[in-house]
Amino acid sequence: MAWVPGFPALSPLIPLLATAPPADGPLVLAGVLVSLVVIYLASKLGGELCYRINLPPVLGELLGGVVVGVSALHLLVFPEGGGESSNSLIMAFLQATTPLEPNAVPPTFEAVSEVMTVLAEVGVIILLFEIGLESDLTELLKVGPQAATVAVVGVAVPFVAGTTGLMLLFGVAAVPAIFAGAALTATSIGITAKVLAEIQRLTSREGQIIIGAAVLDDVLGIVVLAVVASLAKTGEVAVSNVIYLIVSAAVFLIGSILLGRFLSPYFVALVNGLKTRGHLLISALIFAFLLSYVGAAIQLEAILGAFAAGLILAETEKRGELEKQIRPIADMLVPIFFVVVGARTDLGVLNPSVPSNREGLVMAAFLITVAIVGKVVTGLAVFGQPQINRLAIGVGMIPRGEVGLVFVSVGAATGVLYPPLRGGNCDDGDSDNIFGSPHCCG
Amino acid sequence: MAWVPGFPALSPLIPLLATAPPADGPLVLAGVLVSLVVIYLASKLGGELCYRINLPPVLGELLGGVVVGVSALHLLVFPEGGGESSNSLIMAFLQATTPLEPNAVPPTFEAVSEVMTVLAEVGVIILLFEIGLESDLTELLKVGPQAATVAVVGVAVPFVAGTTGLMLLFGVAAVPAIFAGAALTATSIGITAKVLAEIQRLTSREGQIIIGAAVLDDVLGIVVLAVVASLAKTGEVAVSNVIYLIVSAAVFLIGSILLGRFLSPYFVALVNGLKTRGHLLISALIFAFLLSYVGAAIQLEAILGAFAAGLILAETEKRGELEKQIRPIADMLVPIFFVVVGARTDLGVLNPSVPSNREGLVMAAFLITVAIVGKVVTGLAVFGQPQINRLAIGVGMIPRGEVGLVFVSVGAATGVLYPPLRGGNCDDGDSDNIFGSPHCCG
Repeated sequence: MAWVPGFPALSPLIPLLATAPPADGPLVLAGVLVSLVVIYLASKLGGELCYRINLPPVLGELLGGVVVGVSALHLLVFPEGGGESSNSLIMAFLQATTPLEPNAVPPTFEAVSEVMTVLAEVGVIILLFEIGLESDLTELLKVGPQAATVAVVGVAVPFVAGTTGLMLLFGVAAVPAIFAGAALTATSIGITAKVLAEIQRLTSREGQIIIGAAVLDDVLGIVVLAVVASLAKTGEVAVSNVIYLIVSAAVFLIGSILLGRFLSPYFVALVNGLKTRGHLLISALIFAFLLSYVGAAIQLEAILGAFAAGLILAETEKRGELEKQIRPIADMLVPIFFVVVGARTDLGVLNPSVPSNREGLVMAAFLITVAIVGKVVTGLAVFGQPQINRLAIGVGMIPRGEVGLVFVSVGAATGVLYPPLRGGNCDDGDSDNIFGSPHCCG
Repeated sequence: MAWVPGFPALSPLIPLLATAPPADGPLVLAGVLVSLVVIYLASKLGGELCYRINLPPVLGELLGGVVVGVSALHLLVFPEGGGESSNSLIMAFLQATTPLEPNAVPPTFEAVSEVMTVLAEVGVIILLFEIGLESDLTELLKVGPQAATVAVVGVAVPFVAGTTGLMLLFGVAAVPAIFAGAALTATSIGITAKVLAEIQRLTSREGQIIIGAAVLDDVLGIVVLAVVASLAKTGEVAVSNVIYLIVSAAVFLIGSILLGRFLSPYFVALVNGLKTRGHLLISALIFAFLLSYVGAAIQLEAILGAFAAGLILAETEKRGELEKQIRPIADMLVPIFFVVVGARTDLGVLNPSVPSNREGLVMAAFLITVAIVGKVVTGLAVFGQPQINRLAIGVGMIPRGEVGLVFVSVGAATGVLYPPLRGGNCDDGDSDNIFGSPHCCG
């Protein structure tokens, strides 16, 4: 037992075991493993805590990320958030427990951050693929025009009220105002469906309309997200740009769904012909990553492609099997996304004792009000259903979840949502932001 | 439709859409997505082909990697394999389809390679965790001393014959000879069990002994792998080093299993107390990654920790559920490891028309002979079973699989197995090798 290195008394032994020059390769892996352990602990502690006080666990994952991130414990920090390797407790831990040499610390820190950033991005791609897989276009068509009306009103009212309110009341510029407004749009299918199932109202008429609207809401939200995030990238609202984005988002989403419907029988036949382990999962991932790549390459978002791939495969007979197989992968990768987003968020700006923060807090209160009222009014839009409980529908549309949080995260990552949030060395020419905006300093 | 970028006629539009400075962040993600698509296509094409001609699919994944790698198509190349960004067809593809600027190509290539290397390493960690989970210490104890004898003989004979043969017949140095000998030791549980089940002999006495020996074989093989890979890192066979490694491997493996047996009821109680999604999987991954980190930190291998974690959790009541959840994750990540290993392998050295290659080919023929004969003789070691089919046991031990391939991969990555295989800019001070040996040029 006296042989275990990492204890100071044994340091004479270490040169014997590690005569290496500063090779950071295996220690990048060690850093990634420690980061993953920290992320999973934070996500489970936060998630379980929120579950017990009846909040969505995903909120706890974000808060867990805030606790381990730049706001508090400094375990998980990222270069572009103003963090340096000397601020990272994980790097200090690696130096204490492995033969990591001081001059290898900065490149190892950069490499670990790069890997964690991509893992988080793959996590959100898997999340949107799963949301697409759980959505159902045909179900939505059955619920009919009421659901569509609720969805459109529920996207338009919070978006318009949030955006114009920010611009007129707070003098916010167009791009961040549009971004904040867009973040208020998407109802969470997951939370809504779960709550409805728990109160046994999933099959009521109100429940059906809510679910239908939430499904369409998510589709609309993803399109709005893609349009807004791309606007944020170019930094201005050019009409040709808006038209390009709306057209390309619509062409991409509708086109890939139509093409997917046409090709999916061949996909199923191909999968049925394959014999080796993981034949369904790997075929589906090839499809999802390919569409994600196309989404990224045509200046939209990778997640839009993943969502489209999920929608298409949801219509095949393989849906149930695939959902079962994607679930553990989502369980493994999605928390990385939420914890990393939380870890990048600097809560320092919410301190009301700092005068410059107060306006932000007032804005946040305004946005929360718009988020609630903007969805409650959707019940009034239901037509041809005199007996319906309009308030129940409106309240049922309030929950925001995955897609809304994705919005907030994109906003936080691109820095358009709260420009004062962003500090540090954004101009290092090696932007690692999620959805990497070139102007992360606003 | 005329709006889709990537077509030369539309290039005037692109500046409008992407006024970005060389920010490689989102294009790193695009590069990773394309790399994953290439890897999955290669693994499935190779795997299905091998399956149809009755070879293990994992061999096809390696061959698929060879086809897309540095030996042939140059789609997936790595900096430390002598590849440069200008040799990578994936980078050329990214340049053609996205607004990737020429000066951003080398850093993007480095970042994508770093991410793919870590993903491959996480893949082999998941693979060994799964192998551990499928192993069963108590089952092995039931089959008794015969299985242990077969296992020890089946490890010792190929190891000793292979190592001494290489040193005496071919004049190979001690470290690469030990490495090559060690690579011949581990029988594949997976292949053996599958074949036995297919011929309905899994429950015969011979079948039981083979499975028991294969299980112990894998454990021995992992210990040998850890010892040998660590020897390879320091480049010499120092007695104190060997003792340290054997003691630390034994203490680590036995210690973590004993500690794990003691702690696993608390693990199960903890998991049962958790309510949020993925509670079992995330708890298991925290455990596996933590032990992997310890394995890496004490100069053994991360995969040894992952294997120990799998063995420990295999003894809990959660085993079945966990195996089901790890399966899709292994399906997703393990092919990355095998394809990346194949992609890094330069088959140019196997060309017999190059005189310097001929000795390597003769050595390969010698090693294959030792690999077969060394296992067939194990049947002779069975005692106290006069009626037993000794040849059947010996032949049943021949299949090599995951662990053996891991050996070969470690050998290829560290460069000790066939030093002439390694070329290019190994001395770039930024070694990204799997298991990153500091002396990848031999």
